[in-house]
Amino acid sequence: MSLLLFDVMQLLGVRSDAQLVGDPSTVIDRLSPLESAGPQDLAFLSNPRYTAQLASSKAACVIVSTAMRQPAVERGCSIVASEPYYCFALVTQLWKQRHPGLSDLSAGHIHPTAFIDPAASIAVTASVGAFACVEAGAVIADGVNIGSHCSIGHGAHVGADSHLSPHVTVMHGCFIGERCVLHSGAVIGADGFGFAPHAGQWVKLEQLGKVVIGNDVEIGANSCIDRGALDDTIVGDGVKLDNLVQIGHNVRIGNHSALAGCVGIAGSTTIGAHCTFGGGAIVLGHLTLADQVHVSAATTVTRSITQPGQYTGLYPTGSHADWEKNAATLKSLHALRERLRLLEKAMGVREQRK
Amino acid sequence: MSLLLFDVMQLLGVRSDAQLVGDPSTVIDRLSPLESAGPQDLAFLSNPRYTAQLASSKAACVIVSTAMRQPAVERGCSIVASEPYYCFALVTQLWKQRHPGLSDLSAGHIHPTAFIDPAASIAVTASVGAFACVEAGAVIADGVNIGSHCSIGHGAHVGADSHLSPHVTVMHGCFIGERCVLHSGAVIGADGFGFAPHAGQWVKLEQLGKVVIGNDVEIGANSCIDRGALDDTIVGDGVKLDNLVQIGHNVRIGNHSALAGCVGIAGSTTIGAHCTFGGGAIVLGHLTLADQVHVSAATTVTRSITQPGQYTGLYPTGSHADWEKNAATLKSLHALRERLRLLEKAMGVREQRK
Amino acid sequence: MSLLLFDVMQLLGVRSDAQLVGDPSTVIDRLSPLESAGPQDLAFLSNPRYTAQLASSKAACVIVSTAMRQPAVERGCSIVASEPYYCFALVTQLWKQRHPGLSDLSAGHIHPTAFIDPAASIAVTASVGAFACVEAGAVIADGVNIGSHCSIGHGAHVGADSHLSPHVTVMHGCFIGERCVLHSGAVIGADGFGFAPHAGQWVKLEQLGKVVIGNDVEIGANSCIDRGALDDTIVGDGVKLDNLVQIGHNVRIGNHSALAGCVGIAGSTTIGAHCTFGGGAIVLGHLTLADQVHVSAATTVTRSITQPGQYTGLYPTGSHADWEKNAATLKSLHALRERLRLLEKAMGVREQRK
Repeated sequence: MSLLLFDVMQLLGVRSDAQLVGDPSTVIDRLSPLESAGPQDLAFLSNPRYTAQLASSKAACVIVSTAMRQPAVERGCSIVASEPYYCFALVTQLWKQRHPGLSDLSAGHIHPTAFIDPAASIAVTASVGAFACVEAGAVIADGVNIGSHCSIGHGAHVGADSHLSPHVTVMHGCFIGERCVLHSGAVIGADGFGFAPHAGQWVKLEQLGKVVIGNDVEIGANSCIDRGALDDTIVGDGVKLDNLVQIGHNVRIGNHSALAGCVGIAGSTTIGAHCTFGGGAIVLGHLTLADQVHVSAATTVTRSITQPGQYTGLYPTGSHADWEKNAATLKSLHALRERLRLLEKAMGVREQRK
Repeated sequence: MSLLLFDVMQLLGVRSDAQLVGDPSTVIDRLSPLESAGPQDLAFLSNPRYTAQLASSKAACVIVSTAMRQPAVERGCSIVASEPYYCFALVTQLWKQRHPGLSDLSAGHIHPTAFIDPAASIAVTASVGAFACVEAGAVIADGVNIGSHCSIGHGAHVGADSHLSPHVTVMHGCFIGERCVLHSGAVIGADGFGFAPHAGQWVKLEQLGKVVIGNDVEIGANSCIDRGALDDTIVGDGVKLDNLVQIGHNVRIGNHSALAGCVGIAGSTTIGAHCTFGGGAIVLGHLTLADQVHVSAATTVTRSITQPGQYTGLYPTGSHADWEKNAATLKSLHALRERLRLLEKAMGVREQRK
Repeated sequence: MSLLLFDVMQLLGVRSDAQLVGDPSTVIDRLSPLESAGPQDLAFLSNPRYTAQLASSKAACVIVSTAMRQPAVERGCSIVASEPYYCFALVTQLWKQRHPGLSDLSAGHIHPTAFIDPAASIAVTASVGAFACVEAGAVIADGVNIGSHCSIGHGAHVGADSHLSPHVTVMHGCFIGERCVLHSGAVIGADGFGFAPHAGQWVKLEQLGKVVIGNDVEIGANSCIDRGALDDTIVGDGVKLDNLVQIGHNVRIGNHSALAGCVGIAGSTTIGAHCTFGGGAIVLGHLTLADQVHVSAATTVTRSITQPGQYTGLYPTGSHADWEKNAATLKSLHALRERLRLLEKAMGVREQRK
């Protein structure tokens, strides 16, 4: 497996402002992290924090930012670009494209063990893997790749060039856009969690909506997006969900938002565009978050957020012994404040309200 | 797809105190949220907060509480009931029943690609989907619907009229009650997490119990209920679990409790009846929670709870800058309390212990 | 199903220092918890807290620690050992081995519905379940048991005597060691979450590494271990993961660490050996945790940890009313500290910095 820097620059020259300072006939055998790159490897440096690693790197070539041009060129062969991380991403795509064996996705054919209902519509250029099941009325568009054991429900739609890994479930009527990537175990369109209390029991509200997913969406392994109760659950274009993410019914996620692993968004919440959520964040239901809201890991959002910005709410971690002392005090924090107020009063200090 | 209000009232008249104020021959084409309902739609209003939407709603008919009778009737056709949300839930069930195409569940037959061990017992009225596997000794009762790719282990039991979506795993010996709904990717009866430390390694305790699930239980997508170590893990009647919920071995969940998404209950904990858990809540192991305990989202329960009530423990979320300041102070909260105590002492104030 | 204490001691005599005080011909019909054990049952007592249950237990025999020898022997038949919990674990293994019907794993054969690519290599002593799919180049070693509906990707390797429950996905090129146990829904080798921001969108970094899992590793139901971006994601020998655990790309987990349910480890973090993580703990990315670090449940680790020990950071849970008061105060904690400082200054007290 190899590439020439010439091939790399053919791509980067079109898609970026990257410039090669070095020999285009250099052979690249591997894409590597800067610190472990060997003499046939292409690496990148995007975080200035790791600049110290640059001088000592053995890499055949390093993609660096324009600010790093001088030390990079002094070291040796370099690709200089205003967005080195983006350029490196493009190179990984080129690498995978040139080495199709790196994937489990089969090339354009229907596996003999797959079950396709006669009333389903499968494009000639689509592939369907072993033991996949495509129900009546489902539409599988051009260039789609359905992995083994996938289940595509009645009337579901999978848009052009989308790739489903093994074991993906797309329930009846759900819509997946173009160029989406769904990882194994993802469940699109299970029932939302809707029950009415009655006489001490829970009475089910049948979930009559569906899930509508835009283009260029990626959905991680074992993540779940519930179908809407009445209207649909909507995931915008370019949204990226990591693994084990839960999206409740009637949630709307704006374009190009990204949710890290183990995030949960409760029902009927609307998330803006270009938002990010750190791992394990929880957003309660029926809230609205503006565009460009960034929620830190393990943070719980209990109210709507109208302003862009970074929001955090997690208990700081320390030694268990320290935690025990501080957490005990926290349980009487309100009383502490009251004691402080009384002291201030006794001393004639006016409370400084924040 | 449509219903007459006459059909709706035939159901609600038997199951509730609902009364129609309007024309029973009104045709309903859709069930809709109040704010977006069109002139052929049936909507409901249960939260008085949204009363303002009532007057402007274009809905053909709105189900409202008795307290809302007057403004509703002034607007137009109304169904008045003491429990409007419950009534609406019943209508969604009627809707789905009348429109069976809304589901991936096949009608009463064994898919030719399914594998059923000759020593399994399948009721004549049960259905089994594509590539489902039913092992020896398993019992599939009347009216059960097993989705595609389900795996029903040796000697497992699925009670009458239960519905399993595609990709559900029920491991050997586990018992599912009647009228249960299991969503895709749910795993019932994987091994509990039990290991004995020995010489710096973990030695497995084989998990010899099973999972016993009552009637009318719903289990969300990719949720897991582990089999017991020695005794069984038990889920009571009417319990509702959302997606990505983890139930450890030997947990017992009382009847009609409801757990939202991403909740985790650690092993050997006993949960009472009629409890609720917000999304992302964690309950440690070997605890006992009384009936009617309500745990807020993202709250961690570290001790048993003997009294009904609402329990909360989550760090309040604000701007990251504010969090940084407050979290830093939190790490020395105990010292702060001590400083306050010293001040009080210096001023001759007796500490007011809470 | 039964065992003689003679059989039990044949095992424990070799693997431990256990001694039987009683009749080796005693028949054991069941392994039970101490408090519910009947007169044909074998139980154990490892936690001195439950000593009171010993005297009243009806168990045929109880495994106890050497410290408990006297009260145990006074009660009746006992097995005395320095590690009673470990001994009991060994007995559960013996029990399962003698009762193979307790498992869904089929005995050494290829199910006729399985699909095995002609270019895959399956050991003669391996079994493959219904509808399992083994792709070209995959290697299934001796004694391996592949459950129904498993998907083993191109060039993946499953080491000797490993057991995969139904619905496990092992993606292309991933490596599973020997004697591993993977529970249903586990996904090994889905893409890591890597995207470069560019022009307001996310550009995918193809994930070119793989997952390498050591020997004696157990992975819970619906847990996910992502493939590395460039290098591999590595899970050491003897590591135990519970259900719904998320391991990001390029994480390294040291030998014999254990992670409880719903834990998430973000990308490029290195975890030491013999670490433990309570349920719902989150570790941010690019951190390093030393050996023997123990992270409490629901705790978020935001910085590297260099010293062994117990680390905690979770908001203490109480009544919702108390929480409301204290959480409100917490939002102005920094201001509170400032007020205290001013008071101290006013009184001429020197701030006692911690």
